[in-house]
Amino acid sequence: MKLPTKTPFEQLQDLVGRSVTDIDTPALVVDLDAMKRNITRMAEFARKHGVRWRPHAKMHKSAELARLQVAAGAVGVCVQKTAEAEAMAAGGVNDIYISNEVIAPHKLARVAALANLLADRGGQLAIAVDSVEGIRRLSQAMEESGKLRAVVDVFVEIDVGQGRCGVPPGPHALALAHEIRRHTGLHFAGLQAYHGKAQHLRGARERRDAISMVVEDAVYTRKLIEAEGIPVGLITGAGTGSMVCEAASGVFGELQAGSFLFMDADYAANERDAAQPQFEHALFVKTQVISAQAGHAVCDAGHKSHAIDSGLPRVLALDAETELEYFNGGDEHGILRPAGTSTRVPEIGRMLWLIPGHCDPTVNLHESMVGVTGGLLSGTVDRVIRVDARGALS
Amino acid sequence: MKLPTKTPFEQLQDLVGRSVTDIDTPALVVDLDAMKRNITRMAEFARKHGVRWRPHAKMHKSAELARLQVAAGAVGVCVQKTAEAEAMAAGGVNDIYISNEVIAPHKLARVAALANLLADRGGQLAIAVDSVEGIRRLSQAMEESGKLRAVVDVFVEIDVGQGRCGVPPGPHALALAHEIRRHTGLHFAGLQAYHGKAQHLRGARERRDAISMVVEDAVYTRKLIEAEGIPVGLITGAGTGSMVCEAASGVFGELQAGSFLFMDADYAANERDAAQPQFEHALFVKTQVISAQAGHAVCDAGHKSHAIDSGLPRVLALDAETELEYFNGGDEHGILRPAGTSTRVPEIGRMLWLIPGHCDPTVNLHESMVGVTGGLLSGTVDRVIRVDARGALS
Repeated sequence: MKLPTKTPFEQLQDLVGRSVTDIDTPALVVDLDAMKRNITRMAEFARKHGVRWRPHAKMHKSAELARLQVAAGAVGVCVQKTAEAEAMAAGGVNDIYISNEVIAPHKLARVAALANLLADRGGQLAIAVDSVEGIRRLSQAMEESGKLRAVVDVFVEIDVGQGRCGVPPGPHALALAHEIRRHTGLHFAGLQAYHGKAQHLRGARERRDAISMVVEDAVYTRKLIEAEGIPVGLITGAGTGSMVCEAASGVFGELQAGSFLFMDADYAANERDAAQPQFEHALFVKTQVISAQAGHAVCDAGHKSHAIDSGLPRVLALDAETELEYFNGGDEHGILRPAGTSTRVPEIGRMLWLIPGHCDPTVNLHESMVGVTGGLLSGTVDRVIRVDARGALS
Repeated sequence: MKLPTKTPFEQLQDLVGRSVTDIDTPALVVDLDAMKRNITRMAEFARKHGVRWRPHAKMHKSAELARLQVAAGAVGVCVQKTAEAEAMAAGGVNDIYISNEVIAPHKLARVAALANLLADRGGQLAIAVDSVEGIRRLSQAMEESGKLRAVVDVFVEIDVGQGRCGVPPGPHALALAHEIRRHTGLHFAGLQAYHGKAQHLRGARERRDAISMVVEDAVYTRKLIEAEGIPVGLITGAGTGSMVCEAASGVFGELQAGSFLFMDADYAANERDAAQPQFEHALFVKTQVISAQAGHAVCDAGHKSHAIDSGLPRVLALDAETELEYFNGGDEHGILRPAGTSTRVPEIGRMLWLIPGHCDPTVNLHESMVGVTGGLLSGTVDRVIRVDARGALS
């Protein structure tokens, strides 16, 4: 007797061309048709508003999906981590923005190497900063990287309401712009003004109000910097929740929204802004019932299969008689109870589809995503998509 | 210019023999000295109470750590998933109990193959069931696996208060015991009576009360089965929270506790039962400050580095002046504010250690754990431990 010798990825590859019903559980499944419609809508939206579109790859972590979006008009990708940037570069993406602070000298040496690699390919690396210390360490890493051919685009991050990274709008940002311009390997490229919390304000009006303050902060800071003769090339930010506001501002030149690609239960719970494209759910966890008891069933997907930081998954209703609500069953289980007017507990072996609460950390739990066409009920497995930057934490 | 060619595991291997201060962030770090003391205490506890000890490998997911516990007296491991069982078998563990229901025929074929593999090695596979359908599918898979040499130990799971898998105590369990005995490749081995929710009841008295009802349910069910002349070989269950109660019951013959190995912030928040060994925290996320603002700092570990299903991590206090509280900063960030009498915001680059809220899903986020000896402040990297069953969902 032998253990299986195929890797999980190779096992999934064997599914290509077969029915979605053959996908074993739990599995992360992408509805490729819905995903492509989301891409088309996003590309149209950016074109209509005359803004650049740089979707965040921290969400899907896949070089293949990054390339697909670049082919549709995206200028490149955002990432949060050096290791994510390396994974995207290894997968053929040439324009990468690390929209986050990097401080460790060991990682900054990798950032510098990556800047030179992308420059060699005719691409570009960019990064965010929010401290003099960070700028000096980055500059030192660029100097020590040898060639000094590449110049890194550096964005000053301002805190526009999230209370996380970023200096306050105004003089602090001006001081950092001056500091960046003292270093030959660095180019002051503009401002990052991202308000993460605003993405999840439920009301469309609330989000508009929050982003109007973001825009004020960005304009104020830009004026202060430009008053000293320093051009502010670009203001970048926005997520799927608030993007219509930044796009309409005339101030933001670039949208970082990434979750639109898959949409999750949390974003779908937002009141939709009339100006927002109608994005569809495209990411699902396929699961099956492993235990059926009086009043509840148990499926084989718990929070090792999907992240619950933004709430529990919703169960996709496949028919009216088995409307189900998902309750927390721990790491490996989900507890399902009849919901709405339904009273039926699904039987053992029944396949179900979960819409994750939050797509980013859900994707990060999986090595691959199974891409299907033709729908979840009777579709076909088209390809297996690698999560290249899974666990790329450093 | 080239991208790094070493895998993340190989990069970590380069740290062996070097100082803990050289570990880049974020990283999952095991205090091997504390972990070994935990193992010694657990082994002593089991010996003193005359119970078998079968620690759950769904927590650490590492064949190396499973073998270490077997060497210290554990009879084998528990796992929740077929793929975890395969990873443990591939890593040299020969006595494996899948303490969960497996329903998919594709997976049951793998279970049957594994049962034969372990039998070939002189080992044993066991599994839990809670339905006639599950028993019949398992039996069919064993028949179809060809040789029919192996006999699987089958435990009937009873629901003792968790409201998840398991039939109600009593006649339902008796019926399943009878069903198991109708199949030649299956051996009715006893009852699984695990109360997951009781693990996290804060008061020691509450946990004792909850487990006394579990014991009643188990005894009642055993009597019913034994009254029909069917021996109930073993009652298995217990977790780190409640193990002193099951061990003292005289009814449970096996403890499944796994988290004692690392201890997490959630288990440490339980009122300690006087009979409980004093387990120490042995699992940490090393992180560093990447942004320092007025009133708060931001570190590079968010919930892609540690699971938050059982609460946010605690910050290990390294000195009295920098006591810090961790606030949710999203997928990649943690927000740190001075706590207690401390008012100091840590500086950029400052290294910190987080005690995860829940060790099981935290380990699952990482490819490797860095094992250190000599403590977190001035210790040395001793080895890198693979998370063999990371993402083993199926």
